[in-house]
Formats: sequence, structure tokens, C-alpha cells
Amino acid sequence: MADEKNPVRFGILGCAEIARKVCRAINLSPNSTLHAISSRSTEKAKQFAVKNGLSDLVKVYGSYEELLDDFSVDAVYIPLPTSLHLKWAVLAAEKKKHVLLEKPTALNVGELDRIIGACESNGVQFMDGSMWYHHPRTAKMKELLSDANLFGEVRMIYSSSSYMPPPDFFENNIRTKADLDPFGALGDAGWYCIGAILWAMNYKLPTTVTALPATTLNSDGVIMSATVTLHWEQEGTVATFHCSFLAHETMDVSVLGSKGSFHVEDLIIPYEESSASFNFTSGASFVDHHLGWNTKEKEVRIHHKLPQEALLVTEFSRLVKGIKDSTIGPEARWGAISRASQVLLDAVKSSVDGGSKTVYI
Amino acid sequence: MADEKNPVRFGILGCAEIARKVCRAINLSPNSTLHAISSRSTEKAKQFAVKNGLSDLVKVYGSYEELLDDFSVDAVYIPLPTSLHLKWAVLAAEKKKHVLLEKPTALNVGELDRIIGACESNGVQFMDGSMWYHHPRTAKMKELLSDANLFGEVRMIYSSSSYMPPPDFFENNIRTKADLDPFGALGDAGWYCIGAILWAMNYKLPTTVTALPATTLNSDGVIMSATVTLHWEQEGTVATFHCSFLAHETMDVSVLGSKGSFHVEDLIIPYEESSASFNFTSGASFVDHHLGWNTKEKEVRIHHKLPQEALLVTEFSRLVKGIKDSTIGPEARWGAISRASQVLLDAVKSSVDGGSKTVYI
Repeated sequence: MADEKNPVRFGILGCAEIARKVCRAINLSPNSTLHAISSRSTEKAKQFAVKNGLSDLVKVYGSYEELLDDFSVDAVYIPLPTSLHLKWAVLAAEKKKHVLLEKPTALNVGELDRIIGACESNGVQFMDGSMWYHHPRTAKMKELLSDANLFGEVRMIYSSSSYMPPPDFFENNIRTKADLDPFGALGDAGWYCIGAILWAMNYKLPTTVTALPATTLNSDGVIMSATVTLHWEQEGTVATFHCSFLAHETMDVSVLGSKGSFHVEDLIIPYEESSASFNFTSGASFVDHHLGWNTKEKEVRIHHKLPQEALLVTEFSRLVKGIKDSTIGPEARWGAISRASQVLLDAVKSSVDGGSKTVYI
Repeated sequence: MADEKNPVRFGILGCAEIARKVCRAINLSPNSTLHAISSRSTEKAKQFAVKNGLSDLVKVYGSYEELLDDFSVDAVYIPLPTSLHLKWAVLAAEKKKHVLLEKPTALNVGELDRIIGACESNGVQFMDGSMWYHHPRTAKMKELLSDANLFGEVRMIYSSSSYMPPPDFFENNIRTKADLDPFGALGDAGWYCIGAILWAMNYKLPTTVTALPATTLNSDGVIMSATVTLHWEQEGTVATFHCSFLAHETMDVSVLGSKGSFHVEDLIIPYEESSASFNFTSGASFVDHHLGWNTKEKEVRIHHKLPQEALLVTEFSRLVKGIKDSTIGPEARWGAISRASQVLLDAVKSSVDGGSKTVYI
């Protein structure tokens, strides 16, 4: 619950499952408060409020428009289906609401550019809902990755993000419908692999992107599983990722450098809320006679107070407050990060649609 | 040291670095004894004997032929450069010596077929020198991988095998010379990735093999680094591996199934000699609100007495003794395993040589 004066007042557009987690995060964030929720019907919004034990002070709207017309709302969180992002994110920006947008951010980078453009021209902050960027573990991993003596140059990145939803998911979930979210497992799970790979490469785009022929589509043409390779020609770096609705739950990232390597297996949602770890080694080699190694991977564990989603909300609200107080302008970095991911999402989709053709970025 | 009656008497052809480890393994193996070593000069062989503290009872030959003509030698270990395997392995078989052959087994599968054929027609055992197959950890991993309820079907395999040798390696080592070992990092490090991937797929060959354009060759055309994708069309399974002389030391295998997943990071040479572990999870899912996981990866640790290389020698000698005693015939499985790896080695090389073309198996 907000303990700072004048917390940023959030409104939520839509009552998706993920909104439950973000409601809680807003409540945990010291500079944020949940002001209003909305759904396509008042009844649905009320059910959500009851189910999540929201305070009676939280306003409940039966339409997204009403919420956007509430002058008390500073910022909106938009967990709507991807195909609705353009309309509602642009409208929110035009209503001077700061925009926290769930991923995948848009149906294509052209749409995302319109969203980011609307945020820029209305002077509001844009950020996507990827939580792991805000975890202190991520900062620690980056510190080690950036150490030329410990890690050296990035040679190879592998990531997998997968889960096996229950059978009704494949019938009813928005992530299986071409008109709502044509990226499917790529936009949901693959978004994180793409983000992690770009993060490891300091957001430099690869030269080429190729989806392997092993892609699985559902009857609606939506991606259920894909394996993708990326290549940075100048650096000679390669990345591979696998995203899937058809495999056991994983969220692996392995980065192999010239002098070190690291592994993390719970990137997007840490196993637990109060601490998270990754494994790091530098300077490993076999000992004499190749009987073993001179060093093992070491666990680096980070303890922290707030869960990463509350840290995301807190960072977003810090920017919003700065903009409201005119001490800073909107931070363009978050839009640029989302944009790089969207460019690769589009490239993978284009490769899949083109029968695994190589797409040049 | 051999504690069984009539231990299998080994001879070693060549004094490569790896022979030091195998000498020690033969001495550790209860059913094996080191009878003779050989090099292209007596002096070199004597130096090796002194350096490794070999018993004065070990015979020292100044040519491979002399060793093969020693009737007391039951079996030979051949760690010669790959281009010499065909000649010496075939000659050894013809001299009725059982053949333990260092990997990569041959310059191509045609050569390997001649080696295996010579072993078959002379009634001697063939096995390649991959040690990790013989580690009890491997058997435990296989047990879990084969459990349809715990692991399900294999969806994706990732492996990396890499190390960064000192600068003089790139000038002098046989693994950098096209006439001695044209596979380079692929035949050395990549052999293990290929083996691990085939092992996870019960040695079923993939439909296609494609080396990514990111291959690095030295001035002699030898592979210094490569990334490869493999696809099993019928199963929809994909594998990727990265092998390199230009990256930090790794030996990762991640196998993602429909119901479980596992990770091992020291496959070919365990961190330590007396125990080894891997991480395994089954049935993982996010908890309510996606605040964490219902289970973490669990470490499965196997304790054992003999190091894996001594287990390899012991298993090889067990087969040799059985053949000598006429209680069993040669075990064809080991040749088949080597052959599957060699087929993929050839396919990757062919893909590299063909400018990253897809090779159909």
C-alpha cells in the first residue's frame, strides 16, 4: 500500500488473469495506488474486485472509456488482447494517461510505433509489462555480463520459455486465436526469450532471424511452438530460443562468453518472491589429466524485499511522478526496449509465415 | 590396479595427452592392466612412461607395429590423430586386438564402417573413448528421461561444449590441422554434443542437420566454432548445439520434455571424481497469481567409487574377457552408437562445406 504522499493512481483496462498479479503489485508498491478498474461490463469488474479483495475505495467502471475519462487516473495498465492494444493504448495516451502495456505490445512494429508516438506526443511514459527487467537479480547478472575480464564477449545465447496449459486453454484462451493474439506462444513465452537475448546483446538487433521448420501452428494458424535462431554477423554471436505451449514449464537462459558463462532457470518468474539466484562461472578449465574442473558454477543469490512486479510498478510510478512534477521527461529507453523485441517478434512471424525463410533485419 | 585374475592387457598406440588419463584409468580398473605403450620413437615412449610413473613391467615400443605384434596384448587404446584411425584400427583388429578408439572415430562414416567391419570380421570388440556413457549419472538421467509419466516426450535439446585453449594450441594442436583432424572443434567438443543429443533421442537419427552461417574456420579450413540445428520431423523434436574452441569452458545439456526437464552442466567431465549431479524437474507450474513455482529443479546426485574413465575401461574389459572366454560375442551396440555420431559429424561438415545447406539424413 502506498506510503508516499500523492501516490500514482492506477486504472486497469480489462480483468485478465495477469491483472490480479498487477493489482497486488500496485498495492505493494510504496508510490502507487489502485484507483479504478474497468471491464466491458460493470458486473464483471465487480466480480474481479470481490475476487481480489479490492478496497471499496477502488472505482469500478463498466467500460474502458469511463475509466479513461476519470481525471483522477494518472496511469493505466492494459492487459487486453494484443489486437486491442493499438486502440486503447493510443486513446489512453491521448487522455494523458501514462501507459503500462502488457506484452506482446502490438500486432506489429508499425502499431507499436503509433502507440509510442502517441505517448511521446502526449508527454506520457510508456513501458511494457515485462517484470524481470526490474528484478535486482537482472542488474547483478548484467554487471557480471558486462565485465570484460570476467565474462568477455558473448558467443552464444540459449533460452527456452515453455509451459503446458490445460486442454481448455487451447479452445478458449486469447493466445490461441488469430484475431486476438496471432503470435501465440511466440508472443507470450517467446517474448521473454527475445527480451533476454536482446538484453544480453545490449539491445543490438541481430543481422538475421530464422524460425526452424519445426514450428507447430494450431488450426487457426497461431504459433503453439517454435524454435528460432538469431545471428549477429559482425560479432559472430548466435542465439537460439525455443518457445512452446506444448512442453514442460521452463524459463532458461544460458549465456556463453569468451571468458565466463551463466545460467538462470527461472528468469521471468523467480522460484520464490524474496530471493533469486543464478549460476555464474569465469575462467573454468579442466585440471591436469582432465580429471575434473578447477572451478564449479557458483550460485549468486540476491535477496530483496519487494517482488519484481512491485519493483516494475514502483519504477514506472517513479517516472510518472517525475513527469508530473516536471523534474524529468518521459524515459524513452523503455519504448526502445519494447520496440527491439517487437521488431524480432515480427521477424520471427515473418520467417514462420514464409516457410522458415531467413529474415534480414 | 587389476585385482581380478587374468586382467585384460592393454597396449596404447601413441602418447597423446589423453593417453595419460587412460593409463591411469587402466590402472584403476579391476579387470585391466597396462601391458605396453608405443610411440613413433622409443625415446618418446620412455619419456611418457617416466612422466606418468608407469611400472617397469610396462613394455615400451618404439613403433605401433611392434606393439601390435606383441601376442600378450589383448586390447589397444588408440588416441592417434583422426586421419590415422583407419590404418591403425583396422590393423589392430586384423592382429586380433580389441579396439578402444578415441573420438572422433574416423574421417568419415565410410572409414568407420571399414574399422567396425574389420572388428566384426576378426571377432574383436569395438568401442569409442567417450567416457560419459559409462558414468552411473548417465544411467540415472536415462532412467528419468525414459519415464513417460515424469518426463514425457522430448521436445527440445540444447547442448554446448566449448573451451578456450592457449594460443599455441591454434598453431600446433592436431585439432587445428586439416590433414590430421579436419573436424576441429566439431570432432572434439561437438562430438559430445552430438552424442548427448543422440543419447536423449535413443540414437534415432534426425531428419535434417543444418550448420548455421555463424561457423568459424581457421586458415586451414578447420572448424573452430559452429552452431548446428537438428530436426526430427516425425517427432517434431528440435536440437541445437554449439561447439567451440573460442568460448569459455562449458559442457551443458538441457533436455526439455512434455512433462519434465533436466539440466547438466558438466556432462563429459564431471566437476569432481567421486560424485556427480544433474538437475531434474517434473510437473512444474506457476502457482496462483503467478507469484512463483510449485516446485524447483531438484539436484539428483550420484556417488560412485571409480571415475567414469575407469568404468569405461572396466566395461570394455568385461566385454573383452567374455569374448576371450567365449561366453559372449562382441557387443555391436557400441559400434552403432559411434556410427550414429559419425553420420551426424559428417552431415554437419557437409552442411558447413556447403555454405550452411540443410543436409537430409
